[in-house]
Parts: sequence; C-alpha cells; structure tokens
Amino acid sequence: MTKNDIAKRVHDHTWKLDPIIRSLLDTDFYKLLMLQMIWGLYPEVDATFSLINRTQSVRLSDEIAESELREQLDHARTLRMSKKEMIWLAGNTFYGSKQIFQPEFLAWLADFQLPEYELTRRDGQFELHFHGKWKETSMWEIPALAIINELRSRAAMKSMGPFTLDVLYARAKARMWSKVERLRALPDLRISDFGTRRRHSFLWQRWCVEALKEGLGSALTGTSNVKLAMDADLEALGTNAHELPMVLAALTDSEEALVAAPYKVLQDWNRYYGGNLLIVLPDTFGTASFLRHAPDWVADWTGFRPDSAPPIEGGERIIAWWKQHGRDPREKLIVFSDGLDVETIERAYHHFHGKVRMTFGWGTNLTNDFEGCAPVEIEGLKPISIVCKVSEANGRPAVKLSDNPEKATGDPAAIARYLRVFGTEERVAKPLRV
Amino acid sequence: MTKNDIAKRVHDHTWKLDPIIRSLLDTDFYKLLMLQMIWGLYPEVDATFSLINRTQSVRLSDEIAESELREQLDHARTLRMSKKEMIWLAGNTFYGSKQIFQPEFLAWLADFQLPEYELTRRDGQFELHFHGKWKETSMWEIPALAIINELRSRAAMKSMGPFTLDVLYARAKARMWSKVERLRALPDLRISDFGTRRRHSFLWQRWCVEALKEGLGSALTGTSNVKLAMDADLEALGTNAHELPMVLAALTDSEEALVAAPYKVLQDWNRYYGGNLLIVLPDTFGTASFLRHAPDWVADWTGFRPDSAPPIEGGERIIAWWKQHGRDPREKLIVFSDGLDVETIERAYHHFHGKVRMTFGWGTNLTNDFEGCAPVEIEGLKPISIVCKVSEANGRPAVKLSDNPEKATGDPAAIARYLRVFGTEERVAKPLRV
Repeated sequence: MTKNDIAKRVHDHTWKLDPIIRSLLDTDFYKLLMLQMIWGLYPEVDATFSLINRTQSVRLSDEIAESELREQLDHARTLRMSKKEMIWLAGNTFYGSKQIFQPEFLAWLADFQLPEYELTRRDGQFELHFHGKWKETSMWEIPALAIINELRSRAAMKSMGPFTLDVLYARAKARMWSKVERLRALPDLRISDFGTRRRHSFLWQRWCVEALKEGLGSALTGTSNVKLAMDADLEALGTNAHELPMVLAALTDSEEALVAAPYKVLQDWNRYYGGNLLIVLPDTFGTASFLRHAPDWVADWTGFRPDSAPPIEGGERIIAWWKQHGRDPREKLIVFSDGLDVETIERAYHHFHGKVRMTFGWGTNLTNDFEGCAPVEIEGLKPISIVCKVSEANGRPAVKLSDNPEKATGDPAAIARYLRVFGTEERVAKPLRV
Repeated sequence: MTKNDIAKRVHDHTWKLDPIIRSLLDTDFYKLLMLQMIWGLYPEVDATFSLINRTQSVRLSDEIAESELREQLDHARTLRMSKKEMIWLAGNTFYGSKQIFQPEFLAWLADFQLPEYELTRRDGQFELHFHGKWKETSMWEIPALAIINELRSRAAMKSMGPFTLDVLYARAKARMWSKVERLRALPDLRISDFGTRRRHSFLWQRWCVEALKEGLGSALTGTSNVKLAMDADLEALGTNAHELPMVLAALTDSEEALVAAPYKVLQDWNRYYGGNLLIVLPDTFGTASFLRHAPDWVADWTGFRPDSAPPIEGGERIIAWWKQHGRDPREKLIVFSDGLDVETIERAYHHFHGKVRMTFGWGTNLTNDFEGCAPVEIEGLKPISIVCKVSEANGRPAVKLSDNPEKATGDPAAIARYLRVFGTEERVAKPLRV
C-alpha cells in the first residue's frame, strides 16, 4: 500500500494561500480591552498606524515579495468574528470577571473587518500605513506584524529541504524544552506568552505555548494570544499599551494637558476595568517624568509594567516609588515584558523574590529563537526589531519617547517638543535586539 | 474541512502489528557475505545461536511482553526475499565487485525463511535459542537483536503522550545533528553506520543514516544495513564476524587444529572474497595470541578490525605488528567498530591521521543515544549490552574469549580450555556500555 493521501497531496500542490492570520482573535488580548475603551470613549478619533522596521540593515522588501504580503493582508481583511468566537468572548471569564465586554461592544465587534491598508516600497523597506478610525486601525497592529514576521521566516526557509527543516525544528524544540527545564526550577514562577507579534509563525507559537503548558503547569498563567487562549483553555492576558497615552497626548492642545495625558488614560481605563487589569505602563514619555508627576492614586493601582528598562533597574525604581508613597511592594505586582530571555527572567526572579509580586510576559525570545538552529546559518531567521505604532491622531503627530531612545517613535520635531515637556532624565540608549 | 484522514485513522486503531523487521535485508551486510561462505563450505554444520543479555540488571521479560516478542519473531519468519531485493543483490556492485554473490547461492536465498525459535522465560530474562543448520540460524542474529531492542524502546515510550514524544525525538535529532557537525570538522573522515542490531528503532536508524548522508556527504561511506543501503543508494558495508572462528574452532578435534582455526577462517574467506573485503577480525580468542601465531600472509590482507580494545591501544598494536612484518601501515586499513562515540572517533582520528588508513563503523551511540532526551528520565531508553552469539556447533560448545573478558561468551569449562590454549595475555576487563 502506498502511503500518500492523494487528496491531501493534490490539495497541497494546488493551494493558493497558507494563511498566516487564521482568525481575528489571533491577536493580543489587550487590543480587545483597549478597543472596547476606544470604541466607547473615542469612537470618532482618527489614528494612523504605521509599520516601523528599526532593523534597517534588513531590507524587508527584498526578502518578502510585495504580492505575498498583499495576499496575506487581503486575506486578513476577509476575516470576521465567528459565532463560536463571539460566544466565547461573551461567556468566558477574563481576569476573574464575567462579562468584561459589554453587549453593545460585542454587537459592534461581530461585524468588525480590518480596514484598508496603504502599501508602497521605498529603499528596500515597505511603507505600510493603516488610515482610519482608531477603533478600526488599532486592530491591524498585531496581524500586520505577525504577517511580516512569518513571511520573513517563510522566505528564509524556502530553500531548505525537508531534512534541513526537520533539523531546524528539532533543534528549536530541544532548545525550547531546555528553557522550560530551567524555568521550572523557579518555584512559584508566574510567566505567560507575550510572543504573538514577533513570532516565527503561528504554528510555532502554538507549539511553544503547548510546551510551556506541558512543562510549567500552573506556572504558565496564560497567553496574550486570544485565539490560543480560547483553543487551549488558557487565560487570555494583557492590559494596555502605549497607543493610549500616545493618542491622548497627540489630541491635547496645551502643555498642561499634554503632561496630564498619561494620567487621563488611567482614569479612562479605570472606568472600564478594575482589579488585576489596573496595570500602569509608565514609560511612554519616560518613566522618571511619569512617576514625578503621578497623582497619589496611581500608587493604588495593582501594578506596573516597565517596558523599556532592564528588569532589575526598572523594577527597583518602581519599588522605590511605591515606598515613597507608603505602599508595601509585597502587595504590588510588576509585569516584566521587555526583551526577556531565560537569563534575565532568572536574574529578575531571584532579585525580586519576596520583595514584590511579579509576572513575566515572555515575547520574542519565546516564540522566535531560531538563531543557530538551521544546519546552515540563515540571517532571515534572526528576529528583527519591528513595530506597528500609531503615527498620527486626528492629523497630529503621535510620539513615544520611551526610557530607551532607541525605542522612540514619531516625527523628529514632535519628539523634540515632547522631550522639552517631559524631560530627558534617566533615558539611556540600549541596543535593541528585538 | 476536518484534517483527519479517516481511512488512516481506522487503519491506525485497528492494526494488529507494527512490524519491526520489514524485510530479510533489514540485517547486516556481513551476514550475507558469511552466509554465502557457510552455505558453500559448511552447509551441513549445525549451529545454535542464543540471546545473551549482559546487562542482567535489566529484566527483559518484565519490560517486554512475551506475546509481543512472539508476534514479532513470528512476523519475521513470514518474510521472504522480494523480487526487487533479489534483483538488487544480483545486479548491485559491492565493494567495487559485480556479482559478488553466486547465482546458485542467490537461488537458494530466494526461498530462504528464518528457522524456528525456542523461547522461554527464566528469572526475568528471555531464553531465546535458534537451533538448526548454521546457514539458517546465523540469519537470526540481527533481527532477533533488533526486535528485542525496539520492543524495549516501545515499552519505555508507551506511557508518553504525543508532546513528550515530540520533545524526545526533537532532542535526539538535535543531539544527532550536533554530532554530525563535530564529525564534519574532520577532513577526509570515513565513517559508516554499523548500528542495526542495537538501534532504538528501524525508523530512527533510517533518520540517523539520512542525517549522516545529508551532513557528511561522501565522508559517509555506507551502512551495514542492507535494506537501508538499497533504499538510500548507499554502499552496503561489512565483512565478517566472530561466528566464523567460533564455529570452526568448536569443530576442531586437536589443540593444533584449534590454534589454527582462526587462520583457516581467513583461508576460507579468501576463497570467496578479495580486496577491501580482506579484513581481519583478530580478537575472537585474544588479539595477542592471534598476532603471535599468525602466518606472514595475514600481513598481506587489506586491514584489521580490532573489536574489543580501545581504538588507540588496539590500533597501535596492529600497526606495530605490520611494521614487524615489514609492511607500511599507511597502505593498510583499520576499521574501528567497538563502542564508538564522537569523542573516541575524534581522538582516534587525530591520533592515527597520516599513520594508517582508517574507517569507523559507528554503532549503538549512533542509533540508540536517547539518554537524557525524554522530559522525564526513562531507564528503558538506555541501551543495554545484548548479543546473539553462536553457543554450540555440531553439539560442541562455541567460545569467544575477546580482548575484554566482559565480552567473553561460552560454557565456563570450554572458556577455561580455550584460555589455556590461547593464553590470557593483554586481556583487560573494561566496563561494557553496550
């Protein structure tokens, strides 16, 4: 008996598209939380999201065919929420709360479609912009990044034969499992997958999440990927991102309002969410400035997510601030999510154990660590530092300063103005791996 | 569309047997070379082959169900040479020679069937004997060992879920590939697969051979496994084994004839084969004794295969002997085949490079190296030292002394007699891993 399934073989050699985005829920959970707030409070605000490849040495439009990119983006635009997905969003418990999404929001989401995109090429790079209402363009961030990253992986693997691919994935799996073994030596570790945007591929992210689930058990607190959370019965995790203060700051008309924008975001957020969802992201315009101007009630929030400082330095600064404000850090939570690998997780874990509650949102080094795995070294498998950021809101430039100037985005004149307003203290450039 | 192939699924859950031995050619090539000589010169000699598990701490009949063992042995007895296999044996070139097998021998082989077996259990071990004509029982050695070893692997993996198995094989593949990378740093290395008998499984051996082929290219000189050689268009390699001197020694009636038996084997061999097939296996009754009594013409043979001494020590002894006999070792070949791993291969390679031609027959550490690969350590995946040796010839005890007393086999009284005749010099006990 021959072993080939003829129907499968024919399907394989005639298929048109292996889609990268399989569902609108193949996105980060925080996009949905933010979306509900944007939909509720800022339904008429326009926001443009733009792709930014910080790794300029990688010429994306030389590696990826524009036609393939368009096919994938077009395919993503055909997706709608399925009935099963809507039922799950309405019926599931998120962060311990039932019905976190309002029926009116879900009714609107049921018909959601990703808006149009604008794609050109310049100088070996793609110019990819999403124009439109914030409540629509925001949803492009994660699928756009996942598509670019997976097309890049696919291009890098195109010349590999079946055996080479077998070795590649065997080594990546072996490496992943050795990470699991190191992490499970840390008692009471709490860690989650934050690796959707810069993943090697959807299937690989799924394997990595499965590996964490199998190897870490309850130490895996969940995944930021809504589809994977649903499919694998894991907690969907995430709170909010830089786009909220970036847009609200861009909309201000005075310096006072600009300085107040990051705290207005928290007040807006608090109208929608509570408890463990009250996580402060302090670095949009520099953490030092944020903490100096922060009202005392910010110290009542559950925790902080320092996103552009080394874990120990960033964590200690926040702990010091809590203490200044008379709060006990042991009742507080720090979410580490910037550039984590096993070494930094171990170091932060040992440093902060017993001093503060902590959890790790593990990203690119979880879902896209293939360096050295291919039998022949392939540049295209090294992750690049690529983001999709809000660049304009209602026609005004949107800016992110970050604690690391390498992560700053926005029009140079606008960045200069923000730096005058928020100050430059404690901003230290660190090389970006991803 | 659901992804399951229903027919395959039904086949999977209703099948009776996943055969370990798929073909009579799933054996070592030297068995066929020896078989032709046995068939031609000793057709009426009886020889009993017996399973010997030197790793007594592993209670094989507790790990493997007797019924499963019987099913696999029975299945192997149903096998016959296929037309394609017969055509290949007749038409292929072996060691550079066409028609190495005589038409009369092939005609006899076309109807070959493995003879009956005798299986009982004692003390946690299987007593497995093959009685009958030497030209029939000899062919059980490799399939019997492969069946026991693979049934043991299967038993060890029975409790593993799909994810655990995935990690297990990913790690084994990653390890295998790192071995390939080390070996390909050795210019002009010549290495071959000798790992059939103690392999983890047939499919795994095939993967390992594919890895060597992909990674080492022409440094892989071939495989001892006839089926894999045929399927992958590789050279089938191997010459002769201890059973030849063991049987011929057992048949002798005087001490003089006993001492001469190892050289009579070489004379017999020389009637059938020449060139690169003229490889001396000197250790059956101790290499020191063999070399001391060897006629000068033995130094004219192409090479030696020291099989129970550490490579450097064993190789140097043979080189010294060649020099004593006025031969240039650089025109001679040493086949290393005892307990090789990457470290010993590297060491022997560097030690002998430029001094002698050499090739490595890599066995158990190639095809059964799973220690530490399972997410939870499993004793059943560690290879054991198991052999299937001729125990009697025409009713007389057959003996192997070896250079390593741990590898000696035979009736204690007969061993004592052989030790008196051949001497005990230079025999050093070394722990047997496999």
